[in-house]
Amino acid sequence: MAPSERAAADADAAERLQRQIAFIVEADRLKGVLRKTTLCDGSRAENSAEHSWHLALMVTVLGEHAEQGVDNARVLRMLLVHDLVEIDAGDTFAYDVAANVGRETRELLAAERIFGLLPSAQAVEFRALWEEFEAQATVDARFAAALDRLQPLLNNHHSGGGSWRAHGVTREQVERRMRPIEVALPALWPLVRDIVDRNCAVGHIKPPATPGEP
Amino acid sequence: MAPSERAAADADAAERLQRQIAFIVEADRLKGVLRKTTLCDGSRAENSAEHSWHLALMVTVLGEHAEQGVDNARVLRMLLVHDLVEIDAGDTFAYDVAANVGRETRELLAAERIFGLLPSAQAVEFRALWEEFEAQATVDARFAAALDRLQPLLNNHHSGGGSWRAHGVTREQVERRMRPIEVALPALWPLVRDIVDRNCAVGHIKPPATPGEP
Repeated sequence: MAPSERAAADADAAERLQRQIAFIVEADRLKGVLRKTTLCDGSRAENSAEHSWHLALMVTVLGEHAEQGVDNARVLRMLLVHDLVEIDAGDTFAYDVAANVGRETRELLAAERIFGLLPSAQAVEFRALWEEFEAQATVDARFAAALDRLQPLLNNHHSGGGSWRAHGVTREQVERRMRPIEVALPALWPLVRDIVDRNCAVGHIKPPATPGEP
Repeated sequence: MAPSERAAADADAAERLQRQIAFIVEADRLKGVLRKTTLCDGSRAENSAEHSWHLALMVTVLGEHAEQGVDNARVLRMLLVHDLVEIDAGDTFAYDVAANVGRETRELLAAERIFGLLPSAQAVEFRALWEEFEAQATVDARFAAALDRLQPLLNNHHSGGGSWRAHGVTREQVERRMRPIEVALPALWPLVRDIVDRNCAVGHIKPPATPGEP
């Protein structure tokens, strides 16, 4: 390599590293994004960074229960980045219909900016993982989503109702929200049903609306 | 399979799942273990769960800079579990000599209990990853440790000195602590030196003690 080529290569490597570090530093802000779910002990709201860690750990523990064809290493990387857009777009409570209006646009802009901090090939790769999670069209994305449903269920259950109770969530809503577990993590489905039943029985999840009720 | 064999297999599967869920729920407590390092914005102490997420994300971003032979998927799993013992043993500040007395014994007991919640083969596998991280004898463990040093350096730098400043840490101490980066992540070493120099220059890291000083 000629000296001028070497200098150019060095400058490219330095810029690449600088972009990677900028992304890593920006990612720190996910620790400040609060979710509606609390910790299992109910002491405080969970943030999206520690939630993402919990999901990644769950892949390593529950990976054996995934459907055939699931690539757990990919699921793990998908879950590490799946909430990064919330740095700009905020966490949107799944059961809040009004708050979900405009969510997609907000998150697309956030993805553009946040993944755009990375060197371009890496930006494309990370963004594609996030888009795959959002689209829910692959077995990897469906397994990731099942874990993303299971973890708040466990936390709500252990904190005595958590965000279900605080926000008057109904059995119907919870059942719809948990459906991806039935499909992508069927081994866990009996446990999910049991937890939902028990939380309905003690009133932590509201009964379904009676037809004809005002 | 005879009906009695099937019933026994079902009972084993149910117990296995129960143990996995108990481990996942217990792991939630890592979110309550506070480190001396703060978030990049300095607003509060970082906890060990969000720290672990940040490190795992860093593997996916900086993996290309690892030494030859490093298995990034293993490093990732190692980092997800490397701090779990702190649930019982607490986080021990690296620069606090007194607090480090007895750390090893506390952490061994913690590992026994926490990884012991898992089904036995998984308990062995997870504990082995943690032991490998602690022993620092493999390229995977050394890369994991380099990231574990780099992340608080970035956070201290961005929060205006963070735990260095709050605890009067010296240049000598920081340089010794950062050494694994020089070995396992040499591409990042110039950046580390630059950050240390700049934080010494503004007094966020204390100068080395002058020989003969009282």
